[in-house]
Parts: sequence; structure tokens; C-alpha cells
Amino acid sequence: MTLNDVLNEKINIINEELSKYLPKTENPQKNIYDAMGYSLFAGGKRLRPVIMLLVCDMLGGKTEEVLPFACAMEMIHTYSLIHDDLPSMDNDDLRRGKPTNHKVFGEAMAILAGDALLNKAFEIVSSKTYKNPKNALRAISILSNSSGTEGMIGGQVIDIESENKSISSDELLYLHSLKTGAIIRSSGVIGAVMSNAKDEEINAIDNFCYNLGIAFQIQDDLLDVLGNSELLGKNTGSDEENQKTTFITLFGVEKAKNAVNDYTEKAISSLDIFGGKENTLKELANYLINRNY
Amino acid sequence: MTLNDVLNEKINIINEELSKYLPKTENPQKNIYDAMGYSLFAGGKRLRPVIMLLVCDMLGGKTEEVLPFACAMEMIHTYSLIHDDLPSMDNDDLRRGKPTNHKVFGEAMAILAGDALLNKAFEIVSSKTYKNPKNALRAISILSNSSGTEGMIGGQVIDIESENKSISSDELLYLHSLKTGAIIRSSGVIGAVMSNAKDEEINAIDNFCYNLGIAFQIQDDLLDVLGNSELLGKNTGSDEENQKTTFITLFGVEKAKNAVNDYTEKAISSLDIFGGKENTLKELANYLINRNY
Repeated sequence: MTLNDVLNEKINIINEELSKYLPKTENPQKNIYDAMGYSLFAGGKRLRPVIMLLVCDMLGGKTEEVLPFACAMEMIHTYSLIHDDLPSMDNDDLRRGKPTNHKVFGEAMAILAGDALLNKAFEIVSSKTYKNPKNALRAISILSNSSGTEGMIGGQVIDIESENKSISSDELLYLHSLKTGAIIRSSGVIGAVMSNAKDEEINAIDNFCYNLGIAFQIQDDLLDVLGNSELLGKNTGSDEENQKTTFITLFGVEKAKNAVNDYTEKAISSLDIFGGKENTLKELANYLINRNY
Repeated sequence: MTLNDVLNEKINIINEELSKYLPKTENPQKNIYDAMGYSLFAGGKRLRPVIMLLVCDMLGGKTEEVLPFACAMEMIHTYSLIHDDLPSMDNDDLRRGKPTNHKVFGEAMAILAGDALLNKAFEIVSSKTYKNPKNALRAISILSNSSGTEGMIGGQVIDIESENKSISSDELLYLHSLKTGAIIRSSGVIGAVMSNAKDEEINAIDNFCYNLGIAFQIQDDLLDVLGNSELLGKNTGSDEENQKTTFITLFGVEKAKNAVNDYTEKAISSLDIFGGKENTLKELANYLINRNY
């Protein structure tokens, strides 16, 4: 199987499972499910749940033990995009080539759809019967921690407060290690915990995801400068418009491209302990940094 | 001990525990903790966590097993108020006698503070070591279910969609059984589950909380019509202004007052199986319906 085949297989598993959590029947709350589904099925790459499932495969874990967390993670990622796009936040009209959630459903429903996706994430992971409930509690703790004030939300707060002022490269790295990095890291770690990994394995996967997350973010900054909005399905040049400090404003395009390669190599070498079983994750890392402009 | 002494004791326990979850030290995310704390410590009655602790006491449970859930519930209740007050929702300026969260911290931070409180609720309940992890997972499932699209959020969606149109008494009852009722019910049920209650006991407590929740909501509608905004610490008459159907617009003041008494009696009689141990919960129910205008 090529990497593409593997990714498609995983994405299909994730999409099929995700669709089970949004009822299709008419009920008085129908509109909220429509709003949740609109963003959840808007063509996301499913990067975070894919990482979780690939880690599970590498460690010989059981997909059904990890899958609730994979779906929860994608819901949390999606809610964060809906709220980030709101008029009082980034005020974006376009996301993944489609009008943003509040443009379609209105601001009130977009806020509630975000709340509902975050809430549903924890409904999903707590409503399953697990082989090892202690592992599940630990994974819920890692999930909530990485998406909270010391993780993703914390990063978003720092991001908002950094607009229109220049920040140092250390501050930028810290910002992104929280805003985008935290739930990429926890995706790998949760995949490992729910596959009964040893501490040494968990640490290696954590390192892989940490470095991959930074490479991914710098690549995103590059795409915002060099990308074309039609291919990306979102407006480009928004960082410049919002006067945001990025890896590009700090270091320029060439150094940023080098940094993407360096962090990706660091990520890949973290996986050496797995003696060959890590090949798909390595391929994924290389695939991500070669995303199109 | 009088009921007042008991309530004050419980409220102190809850407030002390809640304050542990918001770091006081300077950090780059300081503003979000300030925004969360502003609403969390704005003088709420702590009704939901108090019910949880009183149920625990009645059943001889351990406070430390229930306390994380009590704090989580108060955080979820608080986040829902912050988001409900937003300009795109109820657009309220005043809450518990103070400017609403977005009036003080701005809309972006208020949205994030709400997100963060919802997220923190699940961080708290998943990060503790429990005697019985299976019970804890079950309680997290009940918590998330009652605050989600088939609970509180669902009720808020129906509420928004019912504005400026008349709805039936059945629809109004359904709306409130979700919007305010669901997390009052789950407060009692979680208190019971975390105290190792039998099914029969859980059902009795569920019935008590269901009826108490309706009585509480009708009383709230009465306060909105008859209350004085200074005493209540929020604007009154807002239901009329928003052209909302309430128990008062449907039945008038006198019938609504009778309904408060009827639901409260129903609630109280649900607890008969506890053979005297339920006295404090009964007193609480009577205390709630005699709230001041």
C-alpha cells in the first residue's frame, strides 16, 4: 500500500465513525447538528486522528480503543476553527473553500456549534466501555489538557494578544507549541497511551509530534505567503493583513524553508527506536512538508 | 446546623476547591484566567454543586470523590452564562449585579473564557485518581451528555429558535428540561453515582432533581416579571423584551405560582425512600421556591 492508500483508508474509518455521532433524523435541535456537520465534513485533512491511528498501528494497538479519541480530537480541532473564524476573532469568511460557519448559520449558532463539538468530544470518549478504564481516564486528561488554557486555548489567547506587536522567535515558538502544537502532540501520545505503550515509546512519539507540529506550522506560514487561495481553499496573505509575527516575518522565506526541513528531520529521527515499524509515520512527515503552495 | 449553615459550609468547600484550578501567578495566558475567574467568582449560588455534595452526604459518599465533578459542573454552568450573555445571543450587559464578561474583557476573550471553562471542567474530572475509575467514566459521560446537544446546549438552541414565536406548554417544558433542567438533574445523578448509589436511589434522586429544576425555572420566570433588578443583580423584564414564551405568558402569575408549589412537592416526595436522611435536600427545595422577588 502506498502512503496515499493508507491515508485514505484511515480517513474513511474516521469519517464513517464521525458521521455516527450526528443524528440525521428530524429533531428540535436539528439546526445545531447541521451546523456541527457543516464544518466537521468540510474536507479537513484529518491529520490529528490519522496520526493517532498510525501510532496505534505502529504499536500493535486496537483501533476500536483509539477511535473514540480520534473522533474527539477532530471535533476539538473543528470547534477551534469555527470559533477562530468568528467576527470578534479572526473574522474570516472562507475556510476550506467554503463560507465559514457563522456566514452560513449566523454567529449565535456558530458559537453554539463550536461549544457543542467541544462538549461532544468528551461525550464520545467517556461513553465507551474500555478494556482499561484507567488508561481511558489518562487519555481524557491528556486530551483536555492539550486543548485547554495550557494548550490550544492558551495559544489562541497569546496569539490574539500578540497582534499588532512584534514578538521574539522564542515567544512565537511558544505560541505555536500551544496553539497548533499541543493537540498534534497529544494526538500521538493518546494513540500511544491507548495502545498500552511504554514510557520510552510515549516519549519518542511525543518528540516526533512536537517537532512535526512546528514544521507543520512554519509550512503553514509559508503557504500563507506563497500559497494561492484557490488551491488552499482559504484566503492567503491574512497574516500580513493582521500584522502577525510569523516565522517568515522573523527569518524570511529561505530560512523558514530550512527550518521546516530541520524540524522534520528531528521528528523523524525520534522514531528510530521502533526499528522499521515507524515507516508510515516517517512517510507522513515527509508528505506534510511537501504540501503544495 | 441550620440549612443556611450547611449551605455556607458547602459553598466554602466548593469555592476553595474552584480557586485551586485558576493559577494566580503571572503567565502569558494570565488574561484568560482573569476572565474565567471574573465570572466564576461573581457570586453564584453554587446550586448545582451544592446539590451534588448534599446527595453525597445523604448517601454516605466521600466528598473528595464528588468534589471534582462539583467544580466541573459549576464551570460548565458559568461558561453557559458567559456565552448566553454575548451580543449575538441574549446581548445582556448585567449579570449577578456586575457587567457581563464580554463587557469587561471584550467579545473574543469572553468566547475563549467560556470555551476554557467548559474544557477545564473535563480536565478537572479526568485528572484525579478515583477509587473506581469505571464510576468516574460513567459520571463524565452523564456530565457531558447533560451539557451537550441533547441537554443544555440543545435547550439553548431551541430557546434561540423559539424567540418571537409562540410555543406550546409542552414545548416550553421540553425546552427548560434541557436548558436548565438537564444539568440540575445530572448534578444529583452524578452525586449519587460517585457515592456508589443503587439504581433505585439514582432514579429517586433523578426524579427529585427533574421536578426541582422545573420549579426553579418557573420561579425564575416569576422573578423576571415580579422581581426587582437591584435585588436580583440582573435586568428584569428581559423575557418580555425578547418576546419569549414563559410559564407566565402561558398561564399567568397565579397558576405559575401554584405550579412552583406542585413541582416542589413532587420533587420532595420522590425522596421518601431515604427514610429521614433526605431532610436537608427537602429543606433546600423549600428554600429555593421561597426566593425573594
